[in-house]
Amino acid sequence: MLKIAIDVMGADNGVTPIVQGVLQALESREFIAIIVGDEAQITPLIPSHLQSRVEIVHCIDYIRMEESASSATKRTESSIFKATEILKNGGADALVSPGHSGATMSLATLKIGRIKGVSRPAICTTMPNITDKPSIILDAGANTDCKPEYLVDFAIMGYEYAKNVVGFENPRVGLLSNGEEDNKGNELTKATFKLLKSFDFFKGNVEGRDIFNGSVDVIVCDGFSGNLVLKASEGVAFAISNVLKKEIKSCICSMFGALFLGGVFKRLKKKMDHSEYGGAPLLGVQKVVIISHGSSNARAIECAIYQALHAISSDICAKLTTTFAQKSLE
Amino acid sequence: MLKIAIDVMGADNGVTPIVQGVLQALESREFIAIIVGDEAQITPLIPSHLQSRVEIVHCIDYIRMEESASSATKRTESSIFKATEILKNGGADALVSPGHSGATMSLATLKIGRIKGVSRPAICTTMPNITDKPSIILDAGANTDCKPEYLVDFAIMGYEYAKNVVGFENPRVGLLSNGEEDNKGNELTKATFKLLKSFDFFKGNVEGRDIFNGSVDVIVCDGFSGNLVLKASEGVAFAISNVLKKEIKSCICSMFGALFLGGVFKRLKKKMDHSEYGGAPLLGVQKVVIISHGSSNARAIECAIYQALHAISSDICAKLTTTFAQKSLE
Repeated sequence: MLKIAIDVMGADNGVTPIVQGVLQALESREFIAIIVGDEAQITPLIPSHLQSRVEIVHCIDYIRMEESASSATKRTESSIFKATEILKNGGADALVSPGHSGATMSLATLKIGRIKGVSRPAICTTMPNITDKPSIILDAGANTDCKPEYLVDFAIMGYEYAKNVVGFENPRVGLLSNGEEDNKGNELTKATFKLLKSFDFFKGNVEGRDIFNGSVDVIVCDGFSGNLVLKASEGVAFAISNVLKKEIKSCICSMFGALFLGGVFKRLKKKMDHSEYGGAPLLGVQKVVIISHGSSNARAIECAIYQALHAISSDICAKLTTTFAQKSLE
Repeated sequence: MLKIAIDVMGADNGVTPIVQGVLQALESREFIAIIVGDEAQITPLIPSHLQSRVEIVHCIDYIRMEESASSATKRTESSIFKATEILKNGGADALVSPGHSGATMSLATLKIGRIKGVSRPAICTTMPNITDKPSIILDAGANTDCKPEYLVDFAIMGYEYAKNVVGFENPRVGLLSNGEEDNKGNELTKATFKLLKSFDFFKGNVEGRDIFNGSVDVIVCDGFSGNLVLKASEGVAFAISNVLKKEIKSCICSMFGALFLGGVFKRLKKKMDHSEYGGAPLLGVQKVVIISHGSSNARAIECAIYQALHAISSDICAKLTTTFAQKSLE
C-alpha cells in the first residue's frame, strides 16, 4: 500500500485541521498515512478504526513562518526535516506539507535531489478559470530570479504534468508577458521566447488575463511574477465578495434577492475555492512533494493527498526523468 | 480658458465614442477641445452650441495598435504626432490619447521632454479597492526593464500625484513584492527597498492583494510586473462575472433572486468600472499627458478630460519639477 508522509506541524491553524484532512482521505482511499508531528496532539484525533493505517512520527520542533528557510537544514529535529528524511529513505512515497514552504522546498531539493537535467524545481499551481479545466501556472514562487533556461525547464515540466497528471490531451503552453505579440516582454521573457519557439507545445506570449480565460493550459513565468499575479488575483476575488456582501446587506430588498441566489454563490465559491485543487506539487525533484497553503483547511489537505496519490500512480517523476534525459541527448 | 488636445484616432471602436466623451465633458466644464483627427468624421458629430469651443486639427494617419512604437517619431502626419506637437508648442495645456500607448509615451518623452532629474516617466494607474479611496499603481507598463533608481523616482512621483492630484493627505507608498517581510523580493526590489528605506512615505513591501485592500495608497513596481497584475486582476473580475451570469441563468429561481439584486450588481460594476477613473497620467514628462485605454467608452474619455483639467489646476508638473530639483541638491 502507498505511504504518504504528512507534516502536520507549522500550519496557520495548528495540527487539528491538517490531521482531519488526513483522516478524511483515509476514509475514502487506500493508503498508509505517516503523520509527522506532536504525538500528544495527534493521537487523540485518530479514531480506532483508522489506527492500523496511521503511523505517527513524533516531533515537536517545526520551522515558524517568520523563520528563514535557510535554517531548515540545521533543524534536524523539526517536522519537515524528519518528514523529508522519511521520503528520502523510502519510508514514504510522497510528502504533503502545509508548513513553511521555503523550508519544504530547500529540504526537498537538497535531500531528495533534483531530477538530472532540471535547472531548478518549480512550484506548480492550479487555478480555476471560466472553462471546465483549470489553468496550471509555474513557477508560483520557488525561484524569484530566473534565467531563460529555468523557464524552459518549467515549460517542459508543466507540459508533462498537465498531460500525465491533470489529464490534458495536448497541453498548450504560454509564456506570461505584458502583451500577446511575439516582440512583447522584458529581457527575461524575450530571451525565453526565443528558446521556447522550437517546442510544438509553445503557443507564444499570454497576458495576466489568460490565466482565467483558458486560452492556454499551462502558463510559465518566474516565481516572482507568479507570486504577484496569484496574490493579486486572490485580492480581487476577496474585494469583489467583500463589496458584494456589503452591498447586499445595505438593503432589505437585496437581502431577499440574495436568498434565492444562495446556491449560485455557493457554486461560485466552490469553483473559486483553492481547497478543491489541493496543494501545489514541487516539480523537478526526484519524488512527489506537495506544498499546501499554510491556511489549508481539512478539505485542502484531503485533496492534496489525492493529488499526491495521483502523482505517484501517474509516475510523473519517472516521466520527467526520461524527458530530461532525452533533452540532454539532443 | 484651458485647452485640451484629444487624439481621437486609433482607438478600438473608432472616432465616435471618443468625440462623444469630449462633448460630454464640454457640456459640464469650461475648456476648449482641440480634436485631432479626421475632420469628415468629427464635424458631423459636433452640435452647433459647442462649435465655438471645438477646434478640429485635421489628419487621417494614425499609429495602428499592431505597429511598433518606434515608428511614431517618423510619422509626422499621424494624429498622435500632431497632437504632441500642439502640446509642445503651447497650443494646448494637456493631451488625452486613447490611441497606441507606446507611441504616445515615446512621442511625449521625446518631444515634450522629461522633467529634469526623472530617470524614466511612468504610467500611473488608478484602481478601485474595498475602501472609499482608490489605489495608485505605477509603473503600469511604460518600462518593462527597470533599475532600482527608476523605481525610487516612480515612488516619489506617485507620492506627489497622490497628494496633489488625488487628494491623499499623507500618501503611504509600498513596494510590490512576493511577501511583506523586508527580506522578500527579487534582485530589483531588494535593491530598491534599500534605497526607499530613507523616505518617510515608504511603508515597506506589499503583495499583490494589497492593491485591493487599501493597506497602502501608492504601489510601486516595474512596468512589466504592473502590467501582469493589472491584467490578471481584470481577468479575475471578468471570470467571476462570467461564472455568476452563467450560474444565474441556469435556474429560474436564481433569475428571480437576481432581479432584486439588480441595484447591487450595478453599484458593484460602477465601483469596479475603469471608466470612472479616466485614464492614466504619464508622470515625469513636462506637461500633462493622459493615456486612455484603447477600448475607452465616452464616459472614460469624459473622465480622462476631467483628470487632465484637475492635473493642470493642481500644477503637478511644476511640483514634480521642484521636488526633483531639490532631490538633485541633496
